[in-house]
Amino acid sequence: MRNILTRLKPALAGLFLASTLPAAAQAAVDPETAYVLNSFSFLVNGALVMWMAAGFAMLEAGLVRKKNTATICLKNIALYSLSGLTFYLVGYNLMYMDVTGLIGSFSPFWCPDDAAALGGTFDEGGYSASSDWFFQMVFVATAASIVSGALAERIKLWSFLAFVLLLTAIIYPIQGSWVWGGGWLDAMGFSDYAGSTLVHSVGGWAALTGAIVLGPRKGKYAKDGRVQPIPGANLPLATLGTFILWLGWFGFNGGSVLALGSAASVIEMANVFANTNMAAVGGVLAAMVATQLIYKKVDLTMALNGAIAGLVSITAEPADPTLGMAALIGAVGGIIVVIAVPLLDKFKIDDVVGAISAHLFAGIWGTLAVAISDAEASVLVQATGVIAIGAFALVLSGIFWMILKYTIGIRVSEEEEAGGLDKAELGLEAYPEFGPST
Amino acid sequence: MRNILTRLKPALAGLFLASTLPAAAQAAVDPETAYVLNSFSFLVNGALVMWMAAGFAMLEAGLVRKKNTATICLKNIALYSLSGLTFYLVGYNLMYMDVTGLIGSFSPFWCPDDAAALGGTFDEGGYSASSDWFFQMVFVATAASIVSGALAERIKLWSFLAFVLLLTAIIYPIQGSWVWGGGWLDAMGFSDYAGSTLVHSVGGWAALTGAIVLGPRKGKYAKDGRVQPIPGANLPLATLGTFILWLGWFGFNGGSVLALGSAASVIEMANVFANTNMAAVGGVLAAMVATQLIYKKVDLTMALNGAIAGLVSITAEPADPTLGMAALIGAVGGIIVVIAVPLLDKFKIDDVVGAISAHLFAGIWGTLAVAISDAEASVLVQATGVIAIGAFALVLSGIFWMILKYTIGIRVSEEEEAGGLDKAELGLEAYPEFGPST
Amino acid sequence: MRNILTRLKPALAGLFLASTLPAAAQAAVDPETAYVLNSFSFLVNGALVMWMAAGFAMLEAGLVRKKNTATICLKNIALYSLSGLTFYLVGYNLMYMDVTGLIGSFSPFWCPDDAAALGGTFDEGGYSASSDWFFQMVFVATAASIVSGALAERIKLWSFLAFVLLLTAIIYPIQGSWVWGGGWLDAMGFSDYAGSTLVHSVGGWAALTGAIVLGPRKGKYAKDGRVQPIPGANLPLATLGTFILWLGWFGFNGGSVLALGSAASVIEMANVFANTNMAAVGGVLAAMVATQLIYKKVDLTMALNGAIAGLVSITAEPADPTLGMAALIGAVGGIIVVIAVPLLDKFKIDDVVGAISAHLFAGIWGTLAVAISDAEASVLVQATGVIAIGAFALVLSGIFWMILKYTIGIRVSEEEEAGGLDKAELGLEAYPEFGPST
Repeated sequence: MRNILTRLKPALAGLFLASTLPAAAQAAVDPETAYVLNSFSFLVNGALVMWMAAGFAMLEAGLVRKKNTATICLKNIALYSLSGLTFYLVGYNLMYMDVTGLIGSFSPFWCPDDAAALGGTFDEGGYSASSDWFFQMVFVATAASIVSGALAERIKLWSFLAFVLLLTAIIYPIQGSWVWGGGWLDAMGFSDYAGSTLVHSVGGWAALTGAIVLGPRKGKYAKDGRVQPIPGANLPLATLGTFILWLGWFGFNGGSVLALGSAASVIEMANVFANTNMAAVGGVLAAMVATQLIYKKVDLTMALNGAIAGLVSITAEPADPTLGMAALIGAVGGIIVVIAVPLLDKFKIDDVVGAISAHLFAGIWGTLAVAISDAEASVLVQATGVIAIGAFALVLSGIFWMILKYTIGIRVSEEEEAGGLDKAELGLEAYPEFGPST
Repeated sequence: MRNILTRLKPALAGLFLASTLPAAAQAAVDPETAYVLNSFSFLVNGALVMWMAAGFAMLEAGLVRKKNTATICLKNIALYSLSGLTFYLVGYNLMYMDVTGLIGSFSPFWCPDDAAALGGTFDEGGYSASSDWFFQMVFVATAASIVSGALAERIKLWSFLAFVLLLTAIIYPIQGSWVWGGGWLDAMGFSDYAGSTLVHSVGGWAALTGAIVLGPRKGKYAKDGRVQPIPGANLPLATLGTFILWLGWFGFNGGSVLALGSAASVIEMANVFANTNMAAVGGVLAAMVATQLIYKKVDLTMALNGAIAGLVSITAEPADPTLGMAALIGAVGGIIVVIAVPLLDKFKIDDVVGAISAHLFAGIWGTLAVAISDAEASVLVQATGVIAIGAFALVLSGIFWMILKYTIGIRVSEEEEAGGLDKAELGLEAYPEFGPST
Repeated sequence: MRNILTRLKPALAGLFLASTLPAAAQAAVDPETAYVLNSFSFLVNGALVMWMAAGFAMLEAGLVRKKNTATICLKNIALYSLSGLTFYLVGYNLMYMDVTGLIGSFSPFWCPDDAAALGGTFDEGGYSASSDWFFQMVFVATAASIVSGALAERIKLWSFLAFVLLLTAIIYPIQGSWVWGGGWLDAMGFSDYAGSTLVHSVGGWAALTGAIVLGPRKGKYAKDGRVQPIPGANLPLATLGTFILWLGWFGFNGGSVLALGSAASVIEMANVFANTNMAAVGGVLAAMVATQLIYKKVDLTMALNGAIAGLVSITAEPADPTLGMAALIGAVGGIIVVIAVPLLDKFKIDDVVGAISAHLFAGIWGTLAVAISDAEASVLVQATGVIAIGAFALVLSGIFWMILKYTIGIRVSEEEEAGGLDKAELGLEAYPEFGPST
């Protein structure tokens, strides 16, 4: 595998023009200005990532049935809130502080007061502590959002939130510390720029174990083996959600440059923006062509998931590929979704919005694909990271789901599922005037 | 009250780590670069505040019935437009120019041409005049948006716009000049960072007097005293609106640093972003827990209003609190909403979207809470500002509502209300194919 | 005409205060900092323009019937993707490279590696190549979006995309090279700041020829000459789309300053933001007043199109007008829409969302209006550009539509149109639970 890719790389580079940046000259930006720009990048890009929470909410609200729509809206605003609080109480320091290579410190984030900067002393690449906290915090919710989409329409609200707590307090920051916290996978050379594996696959693994432990929605898989499609109630909302995610992803990947205070960093950020866009473009077009060829019709939800899969695919390395390469990497992500969604149905794994396909499978692809565009990356090391983090997330999330299942329970009753979670959990309707529920 | 708070403060500080920033060193950023950054902050953050207009539109469109949805959409885009024009024609100069301590100048904003800056001379903290105008202008619509939500489903379109004109031309800028224009409340030490009182409470007072003068919707309060819930037609839209407001609030509070051209200003902006987020987090989670405990079900609309109340609560002082303190301040806001919404119903004050609870009551709380996190603030002075501005807004908006009521009339006829404002005022339907209206 | 305008200009200037900026002093910002700021402006503003794709999607999804909603969502995400790919493969270099005055080079955009900047050498006004590519790329989709709205509800999906390919690969970049690529119209002094003509009118011409070749929707024009209104299914979505476009337009016009690295450039950007907003304000209010006067009711969709027309009108020169002048220019745009929409119906040209009125007619007006606010512009030269580009776009798009019509066909069958494109093209429904289709 490694050999094939190594041999393929020069050929692909010829086709798509490798971008081999020369070493940057010593930056001439005054240190305080650089500090301001680095911090401001975290704020602007972080706000865009926060906006992805709205994207997941709309995507999922559009893809569930009307009787479960208000609940999925609540879950999304609640998971964003809860994961932010958790990251403050334990996640940030567990991920970034006092790293032994395996685990950080269990303590709240006592935001440092940036005294050195206020005193006029600036580290190279320095930024305000709160700006970094803000940017890292908004990433956590993304992993949890993936779970909410996959398990919609049958999971209990508070049990879901209990899992979000465990995911964001324990699973996410511990594996995150292995790479972004400077732990053992980072030392080994594992590369995951903005989190194809650390964010998207981890969310995907948690969704996969959850979908297995929870079981499919009633009526999704008929006894004769046929799959019953359960269409979403509001496809324009799902489209809006995808556009929101696309916009937010510029912040997700672009902010992950972690700097803006030099020509080298803004050039990198510009490459990241352009490649992120191109990968989504590749994902949409590939999913459209693939569904047209396979099903003789284009599937809107596949095109939307193609965009997301393209974005997930480029997230592990959005800086190095050329524009053409980025489009190709995204296109493979789009194809993966078209193949994986029916495949999961074969195994009766019921993923309501296609999140496991778009985030887990495309996330694995994107992490391995780093070896194509980044000469210093090794596909073997990339696979090691995928497997290590995957095994950790799979085992821990599986254990957590089982504990929740056999304590507080994770699934609503059959009557509640039939009547809809909005009535059962919230006592209201998302669209009370838009005709009867089905 | 002051004594209790003073005694509580060290204890709370111990729990939540007070952020006592050392004095900043002389800024080293070149003056023209600082000028660019200060101005650019107004543009980026101002664009986020403009986006809040869409948030209010979606929140309100989601919480009214379908027969009044198109009208509330129109009101929102119209009020944003009208208040921008008014602020140009009279508001800006009334608020910021020629201040005698009580009132500014009644004149249009003749935008200065920034000749000094173009000539290479820069004041400390300077910025382009248009960028400041843009940022201040987008705040005005927020106050008016609060009114539109509370009075939805029975107010006449043009009468509402006439009130918006009076609110944004007279009420908002005059009381605004007392604080942000450097007037008497500012001289007294009253502190309202981004407008818990100046923007949100003022809008809330105008909504309260309007709701009283206008009266409740037909059928909302039965003769036997029971409250008839009138559910909103489209809760995912309301959720989207809340997420938009949350995103926009980073600009609302973050831009209110009024600078970006130094390490000190970007550190402050980062603290503001992080605290703004944390307060909303606290508001959502507190409202969820409170409704679960009180009603045995979580209420989505309360969670949404909890987010908004949390955001309003932190708006008076988003820079000084620690993250934990910000979450607490927001959580109290969330609880306030859960208590205030049924309370207003007791008094038969019909607030369609919960705007009075989220903006007025949480705004008062947030303004008083400045005394907790800001050592220089006095709860007495804060209360003075709340009362003075409240009395001014209450009296003037009450007079304006009465004048409108007894001249052009403010309420549609009973038949028009029953048939819906969309038919009566616009002659169209918001959702013509989504089943019959109720 | 020229004489009247010349005479009017001093009078208007007296009313609205002409902004005559003094020449800027030599910029003092360090060259690398300026490079960072220039590039970052392209990224932030470009992301806002990308967001306009979501705006068009929501506007159009709200204004078509439910049976065609999923298809218009798909078309919008597909056209954004396709036009980005096309601009990479041929558009950018055709527009900006190797200009002979008539045409650029047919070649993909091999992104340069910014070696000089990385080596510490900075051109005045320099920026990263990718950031420029990103900003220019997002403009292309806007032109195509105009077409998708006008021709909704009866055009074949893949035929539409084939036209998008021709529009974005050939029509858009060739005429674009005449002005922004430094071609013959630029040499003549034709001025189109952010593309009233180059983007909006071109999209409008392509939509107009398409609407003529394609013909109106069945049932739109009765045999007795009466026009049958076909209301959109979801007006809050259309409102949301308009707000998104409004927000995105700050990036569209603001990023077109093409710089942020000096006081002069940020002052210009601030003027652009403020004027862009004011023009939309003028468009909304004028359309509201006009529809109230003409029809005795305010029309929400006209107010929305008034906002868009105001934005299109100011796009040709958003920097020079005063705030009052900008409001007037936008107000004329709003009036144009109110007049043009029924006028097109008179000619049985069926424009589903009013795109031809808002983008083509207001775009022509805005381009001519440059002569009012910009002393160096000549209304004759402006008219020359409008006519030259109009003729080019009209002829080429007409030819392309005819070729498509007589080869792969552009219109779905009558049964498919009656049953809705969602069923015919995608095999699904946008709102499967919101009642039967009409």
